[in-house]
Amino acid sequence: MTVPQKRPAEDLTVTALDNRIAEEPALNGHSNGANGHAVSSLPTLDASKITITRADPNARTVPTEAEANSGNETICTDHMITVSWTAAKGWANPELKPYGPLSLMPTASVLHYATECFEGLKAFRGYDGKLRLFRPDCNAERMLMSTLRISLPGFDPKELEKLIEILMSVDGPKWLPKERAGSFLYIRPAVIGTQPQLGVQAPKEALLFITASFMPRMDLPEGGMKLHTNPEDMIRAWVGGFGYAKVGANYGPSLLATAEARSRGFGQILWLYGPEGYCTEAGASNFFMLWRTKEGQLQLVTAPLDDKLILDGVTRRSVVQLARERLAGELEVVERKYTIDEVLEADKEGRIVEAFAAGTAFFICPVSEIHHRGIDVKIPMGKEGKIGHYTAKLKGFVGDIMYGNEQHPWGVVIQEQE
Amino acid sequence: MTVPQKRPAEDLTVTALDNRIAEEPALNGHSNGANGHAVSSLPTLDASKITITRADPNARTVPTEAEANSGNETICTDHMITVSWTAAKGWANPELKPYGPLSLMPTASVLHYATECFEGLKAFRGYDGKLRLFRPDCNAERMLMSTLRISLPGFDPKELEKLIEILMSVDGPKWLPKERAGSFLYIRPAVIGTQPQLGVQAPKEALLFITASFMPRMDLPEGGMKLHTNPEDMIRAWVGGFGYAKVGANYGPSLLATAEARSRGFGQILWLYGPEGYCTEAGASNFFMLWRTKEGQLQLVTAPLDDKLILDGVTRRSVVQLARERLAGELEVVERKYTIDEVLEADKEGRIVEAFAAGTAFFICPVSEIHHRGIDVKIPMGKEGKIGHYTAKLKGFVGDIMYGNEQHPWGVVIQEQE
Repeated sequence: MTVPQKRPAEDLTVTALDNRIAEEPALNGHSNGANGHAVSSLPTLDASKITITRADPNARTVPTEAEANSGNETICTDHMITVSWTAAKGWANPELKPYGPLSLMPTASVLHYATECFEGLKAFRGYDGKLRLFRPDCNAERMLMSTLRISLPGFDPKELEKLIEILMSVDGPKWLPKERAGSFLYIRPAVIGTQPQLGVQAPKEALLFITASFMPRMDLPEGGMKLHTNPEDMIRAWVGGFGYAKVGANYGPSLLATAEARSRGFGQILWLYGPEGYCTEAGASNFFMLWRTKEGQLQLVTAPLDDKLILDGVTRRSVVQLARERLAGELEVVERKYTIDEVLEADKEGRIVEAFAAGTAFFICPVSEIHHRGIDVKIPMGKEGKIGHYTAKLKGFVGDIMYGNEQHPWGVVIQEQE
Repeated sequence: MTVPQKRPAEDLTVTALDNRIAEEPALNGHSNGANGHAVSSLPTLDASKITITRADPNARTVPTEAEANSGNETICTDHMITVSWTAAKGWANPELKPYGPLSLMPTASVLHYATECFEGLKAFRGYDGKLRLFRPDCNAERMLMSTLRISLPGFDPKELEKLIEILMSVDGPKWLPKERAGSFLYIRPAVIGTQPQLGVQAPKEALLFITASFMPRMDLPEGGMKLHTNPEDMIRAWVGGFGYAKVGANYGPSLLATAEARSRGFGQILWLYGPEGYCTEAGASNFFMLWRTKEGQLQLVTAPLDDKLILDGVTRRSVVQLARERLAGELEVVERKYTIDEVLEADKEGRIVEAFAAGTAFFICPVSEIHHRGIDVKIPMGKEGKIGHYTAKLKGFVGDIMYGNEQHPWGVVIQEQE
């Protein structure tokens, strides 16, 4: 975590975030924080203090992936982790306990004011039999950023990472057994405001919880992912907003347009921004175009992070890094603003090579079509009509690290309790 | 509810809302809806089917207002109303039951994706001894609009109004007794997405609940309400967004800047919009400026509703209507876009007369100062330094209807169960 700089007095949000970071003891060695802010001496999030209450190991059997994903309910593993926080007492001891309902007062902040944020990452059963997380440090750091943005309590991201590892070390052997090599579980950490008070204010009570569950594979939809650009009357995020943070407020409001797009046969919305129509995200995933420039250079382009409109995706980041490292002679990787008109022009001139969405849920998912204001842009899907050459290559790079075909520091092996 | 018109195919959001309204049986006489959409034949929200489970009337005593508002927890009355909904079975029978916690799975939609919306209104104990709601039809209709916008199930707003009346008829006599004339309780209806599934989608299960509680009086802060314009790096809502709907996603993200403004001695943020700096809302309330035009005309100005940036406040609407009816000879009421530069110019030229925030929580609250980019605009607060002449007059008009000093159709009398 870099030490925040002094900001102009008018930047309330950035200043507030800086102050929150400066006050966070776990990030400042338990002394005075940055900017001379007094650091709290309350208990911090501490994974080593976890208490463990085991579920009856025979109470539930592990469904097949198909069974698990067939209903209207997410099937979670035997346990969850919860940690409560109050402004007066700091973080309580984490608890690993049987998966079950949460009890919230009807006046709880999260139910009214969307004081909530989450993360999503996967645990992978490798072809070498090992259980791995993929860059969990990135998720833990992003979760801290999201919690502070939504006025929830801060924590040391390393402790969150440890808690995720503990949950998987306990539930991994049973719920993602060695015979399921090439499979994954989905891990969902979340923080919610639980203070039972209706005043519109930063909650003085909160709950961090982590679940692990089944999730359908979404990376190979029949015929590729079809995108519909967002309606004129709706945008996802805006400069000065919170599109970069994984807060609930980015999701609920987008469901209506997404449902309408789906009823018209499209999988996700391609969210454009501003009168220029900058391409930002595909649904809740990052979006990449592979095209030839007018000069004939093969170029992988994706929206930049600097205006804070889009999520700093872990898959996005990994694709950018691996493409730069491993495909340097074949293509250039550019993070820049680009417009839907550039996409239409490239289509007209036959310069589009491939396109894909990248994110934890959809992994790397080929895009076959973009519909924009009555125009259909068809995107090549490779020789067998399933996935383009470069999309498959990048997916292979990342997947090999996830499933242990390649030993790489991004693949963090979990020590399992057997 | 007016019949929706056909929209251009690209307006996904508006089209989706139209379709949702067209499918809503309660709004379409249980036959085929508008646009020929098939109307669901599932059970609709029906207040007459309510089941009643009474709390022990002696279990809890009623605190004084001061006691009730001194802690970190909202004190609710003996009962709450809950109604569950599923996509497969429609609305269940409403239940009036003892106030208590809700049980939600950790995977519930509302905890991750902010699938939530709410309303706020008050019940008033009149000086004539009667218990009244103020224009509950407006709140019920706005709640329907908010639920549809956030992909939650629709209902007939009249049934919601009846449920609110039932809750107050049961809890009003004890919790807002006749000896407390001039006091109020705060009523909070909410709808949340409860489906326990992590997929980003419109929830197939939901819960409507209504609580009644104490809330501090906020209409006369010492020295008036002081506003700080929003930071350059943050806006509340945007054209194409959902600023007009009472969804959780409008609140949580604003808490950070509000807390920072409060730490600098300001009560609320004056939210400006766009490079022009249009004045929109004061915190979560509507905002009114009373000034003289350059021509000397006394003018009450407030932001318009047509670009859907701001909430269509019931207090705002009532102020506009009453000012037009009763102060026509003295001032003109204008709903239009106006900028912070116009405010600064009016200040320089000595034309500002008064300013106030208007909303259910803050009622009609005089504003004494606006801080913008290093400039302090001081606003007159009347002869006794507490509230300006016209602000007090408008507050009197509305308050007299609320508390029964004036018999008016906006004041809906509740038949109490004594």
